[in-house]
Amino acid sequence: MEETIFRQELQKRTTAIEDLLKQYLPAEEGYQKTVIEAMNYSLMAGGKRLRPMLMQETYRMLGGEDDIIEPFMAAIEMIHTYSLVHDDLPAMDNDEYRRGRKTTWSVYGDGMGVLAGDGLLNYAFETAFRAFPAYAAGKTVDENYPRVAAALNILARKAGIYGMIGGQNADIEAEEQTTPLTTEQILFIHANKTAALIQSAMTIGATLAGATDEEIAALELCAYNVGIAFQIQDDILDVIGDSRELGKATGSDAQNHKQTYVTLHGLEESGREVERLTGEAVAVLDGFSGEHEFLKELLLHLVHRTK
Amino acid sequence: MEETIFRQELQKRTTAIEDLLKQYLPAEEGYQKTVIEAMNYSLMAGGKRLRPMLMQETYRMLGGEDDIIEPFMAAIEMIHTYSLVHDDLPAMDNDEYRRGRKTTWSVYGDGMGVLAGDGLLNYAFETAFRAFPAYAAGKTVDENYPRVAAALNILARKAGIYGMIGGQNADIEAEEQTTPLTTEQILFIHANKTAALIQSAMTIGATLAGATDEEIAALELCAYNVGIAFQIQDDILDVIGDSRELGKATGSDAQNHKQTYVTLHGLEESGREVERLTGEAVAVLDGFSGEHEFLKELLLHLVHRTK
Repeated sequence: MEETIFRQELQKRTTAIEDLLKQYLPAEEGYQKTVIEAMNYSLMAGGKRLRPMLMQETYRMLGGEDDIIEPFMAAIEMIHTYSLVHDDLPAMDNDEYRRGRKTTWSVYGDGMGVLAGDGLLNYAFETAFRAFPAYAAGKTVDENYPRVAAALNILARKAGIYGMIGGQNADIEAEEQTTPLTTEQILFIHANKTAALIQSAMTIGATLAGATDEEIAALELCAYNVGIAFQIQDDILDVIGDSRELGKATGSDAQNHKQTYVTLHGLEESGREVERLTGEAVAVLDGFSGEHEFLKELLLHLVHRTK
Repeated sequence: MEETIFRQELQKRTTAIEDLLKQYLPAEEGYQKTVIEAMNYSLMAGGKRLRPMLMQETYRMLGGEDDIIEPFMAAIEMIHTYSLVHDDLPAMDNDEYRRGRKTTWSVYGDGMGVLAGDGLLNYAFETAFRAFPAYAAGKTVDENYPRVAAALNILARKAGIYGMIGGQNADIEAEEQTTPLTTEQILFIHANKTAALIQSAMTIGATLAGATDEEIAALELCAYNVGIAFQIQDDILDVIGDSRELGKATGSDAQNHKQTYVTLHGLEESGREVERLTGEAVAVLDGFSGEHEFLKELLLHLVHRTK
């Protein structure tokens, strides 16, 4: 796919997802108005909308055509957003700005920052539950029930202590650790803090489309590779990237004595590992007969970015 | 029911629920060990286990005999616990002790306090999802599916912005408010901060037992009355209670210039309102033919406590 066409397609999809998210925002009214405003402020703060996009593309590749995917697309973005809101809190990273915009707690206060994050996580599940066809329409049980149940299980598992929260825990402890990190530790953090929600996105898409267990397992590996490659590329860019383009000072990891995959394995080996992981991820996608040209470009774009 | 027998029955049930909760605790291992320790420390900090108890008693009253109720009993206690963990944070109430025991953040640090609360809320849903019979056993769809779906919807709704979190928001804002609170505002806070999870407990029990919509609506009203009566009684005890027995200084609301139902309506009218609400709640229960002697005693005990 040509770069210009890819950019157009990417923009089209991002806009469509933004429109979808707006439909799922709770109304800013009642005695709960402030926390809802804080939630919506956080959700509408921009971002690449990567997770819902990966979910939708995977769903389509596997022949999914239903709107059952939509509540899950909104839900995963709410989960991603809540994690940023809580990460930014004074009790965590103490960040006042994100993407040039004031963080939730710095606008609404840190108590409301905690509450808005809680509200988003809880509302993510409320939103995903809308996918139950019988629940919504008063119908009886149909084939989508077990698919929705399995998708919900993925959504919660990959966001929790055996996914994103587990990775957060390991990351917090790694920052306080005085002994050298191991490769295993670094990969655990990347696998859970970053790859878990990418896995969640792609395997939920596949599950709702009725994929087989083998197909779901293959996509879980694909998403793992993408998540790890993305993070190693991040570490590489920290060493070689252009500081203006990257939006943060190059070499910041070295200055903070932060141990990364690159400090452990060097630039050359790290670059080869990014290529190996990416090649494997693409090979998985190419094993599917369904349309996946944009999805493939998106993965390559993520991993091979220069900023 | 005689007081001695009630106490024995209460103790028996509390112990059984503690044992049940222990079965649902995640193992304290791996790179996520610390956050899991903090979660389990919070969950095992004691308490009356009122919400799972109300859920189970309602389920039994309506003829429920399955263990499908158990993951929901664990889940609602996890949600209740996460709300306490986040409430105690320095960013919220800044409490170092609860029930004579150090709060989660004061043992594990406030970053870990945020993360442990998040972990509990997320794990509550993971736990409730275990009730999907087909998911767990690889079976196909059965009649429990729509019941579990409806119960999940209640669980999330009553914990979120249209329930507990909404009540939290109103409570935080009421504390900062300089103009007098209205009765409507006070009732909104009690209905959402307190009654919502009691409603969740009782209506989930009823839903999983296959109750009709009318039965569920009656129990939702019953639980609302109990929650409001409980809170008004709390305000009454603050004025007339014995400070040693209550465990906090009597008259603390007046000292803090806190507006309550009692400051707005006086002791006498407040007492009458507690009786009216309780009578209505008991009448609802007595409309059910199933065994509910202990459940009725439990509600009366909650509302008529003198400490």
